[in-house]
Amino acid sequence: MGAKEFDVVAIGNAIVDVIARADDGFLAAQGIDKGVMTLIDEARATALYAAMGPAIESSGGSAANTIAGLANLGAATGYIGVVAEDDLGAIFRHDITALGVHFPTAPVAAGPATARCLIVVTPDAQRSMNTFLGACADLSVAHLDPALLAAAKVVYLEGYLWDRPTAKAAFLEACRLTHAAGGKIALSLSDPFCVDRHRESFRALIADEVDILFANTDELTALHETDDLEAAITATREWVDIAAVTRGPDGAVIVAGDTRAEIAAQPVPRIIDTTGAGDLFAAGFLRAYTQNLDLATCGRYGAIAAAEVISHFGARPESDLAELVAAAPAA
Amino acid sequence: MGAKEFDVVAIGNAIVDVIARADDGFLAAQGIDKGVMTLIDEARATALYAAMGPAIESSGGSAANTIAGLANLGAATGYIGVVAEDDLGAIFRHDITALGVHFPTAPVAAGPATARCLIVVTPDAQRSMNTFLGACADLSVAHLDPALLAAAKVVYLEGYLWDRPTAKAAFLEACRLTHAAGGKIALSLSDPFCVDRHRESFRALIADEVDILFANTDELTALHETDDLEAAITATREWVDIAAVTRGPDGAVIVAGDTRAEIAAQPVPRIIDTTGAGDLFAAGFLRAYTQNLDLATCGRYGAIAAAEVISHFGARPESDLAELVAAAPAA
Repeated sequence: MGAKEFDVVAIGNAIVDVIARADDGFLAAQGIDKGVMTLIDEARATALYAAMGPAIESSGGSAANTIAGLANLGAATGYIGVVAEDDLGAIFRHDITALGVHFPTAPVAAGPATARCLIVVTPDAQRSMNTFLGACADLSVAHLDPALLAAAKVVYLEGYLWDRPTAKAAFLEACRLTHAAGGKIALSLSDPFCVDRHRESFRALIADEVDILFANTDELTALHETDDLEAAITATREWVDIAAVTRGPDGAVIVAGDTRAEIAAQPVPRIIDTTGAGDLFAAGFLRAYTQNLDLATCGRYGAIAAAEVISHFGARPESDLAELVAAAPAA
Repeated sequence: MGAKEFDVVAIGNAIVDVIARADDGFLAAQGIDKGVMTLIDEARATALYAAMGPAIESSGGSAANTIAGLANLGAATGYIGVVAEDDLGAIFRHDITALGVHFPTAPVAAGPATARCLIVVTPDAQRSMNTFLGACADLSVAHLDPALLAAAKVVYLEGYLWDRPTAKAAFLEACRLTHAAGGKIALSLSDPFCVDRHRESFRALIADEVDILFANTDELTALHETDDLEAAITATREWVDIAAVTRGPDGAVIVAGDTRAEIAAQPVPRIIDTTGAGDLFAAGFLRAYTQNLDLATCGRYGAIAAAEVISHFGARPESDLAELVAAAPAA
């Protein structure tokens, strides 16, 4: 890749996670769908928070987690996303800029509060996410920084943005600006229900604009409305340069044209909280990709970063990922 | 003990912890005293936060941590402390009330923000605390709830309150109200520097008002201006009914009149963050004490609760402490 100032710039929902443990009975009593992300309004956020046990707060947001992982790995990174001028907005800004991420988006003074995601972690380490988007709903074409996008090797977008028309317009404009400057567009499908909500437009987007697609098994099969993962992979490789498909404990499959790499999952002594697994896989993958490393190494970096984040609470890495990937044996 | 509605009611600084890892070089560069609590103003809090790495937020406050531990252990608990009407204040209130703690203190609408403690955890698991007291400075006699104090078997006070004259007055009035209702006063000395700041008045307070004293080795020897721990313990037992002295990995000594119990530290596979160790020792101790259990059992419960909290980040327990003490073999 050429001499771009930034390895990866992401556009996403700027969210603070509020993480509490609970059992399956709590999910049932609250009508929470396990393992997925549900959008909630402010009233529901207030009621659900009141019902939740003691929590910890930690910066989150899917694409922001990926950028945090990339910064931890030593990549030059930028982020575009909207917070409010409140305590949680200050926390989000602190945590991402403390990693050296360039974050030019100004906070919004009036209007809804900074987004929060109420995450319930069950004893099986599954996370069920309930997101009040708040200030994120403000994201529009006006927040794009054309010079920043033009300076990125890869612009990374989270599928969750596709839920709102103004963000969707920003998304498409970001694709245009990035490709005009010779950069690549990466997309994470985010969530099978997000895919269900937007299947037709996602298919068109992926075929027309996306160069690198990240999806897990549920998301990819939802995209193609099939139970056959291999058929879904075969269909996807026609649309994108690279597709990275994560399969939880079964590792990942990466396809690029006629090339295929199978990546084993990195062993974890004890899985504590799977929040951020996909986000960090993408981080590891893109770190290797923007260093022009081969697909197997991209997948291995992804597996190592994902393993770190599921071994503790929270969706941001707590260890030096650059050390972890350097210490791992070659594929 | 009589039929009181509450086992323990605490009065303390209502604080949200902001916890980040750093190395000793960061402490040196920032001029932070290792292992102790330093009071900072808002400007310093802003500058230090800007210099810190990514953090997680978790409710804290010394006496509040103790009450959280007691509630986790099944005790009937109350808490008095002041937060502001902001995001961090809402987090503090949520986390303590979610445990079933009665928390009648109204938030302050105008004035300083909710208190925060910027905690730097070094690789040796030591925590260095930098506290901006903010809204806590509002605590006064007006916040005392005489009916609540009268309904408590034990009223627990943190030494940190002694740093401010209005809180000090509230502290003394709480002692008067509690003793008038036949309750006991427990005090935690909090910090050796806090003891240094107030040595003479602490001595008078302990001799005149305190029934149960919690201190670690550094605090107790600072109180008596001696290097001889045994001499400090001997002097202290003249002043209080019970003194519980924690010695880190060397366990604890409890003295009550002519009775003495030596408590071994509970083994921990890996110490991650010592924040809250003393607070949780007091929680376990008081859980057993308010159930009229013997001193050795009080100490054992304390050691088990302290071991849990130092095995993860944050000063509040993440496991079911009642299960842990029930599963432990008798002393």
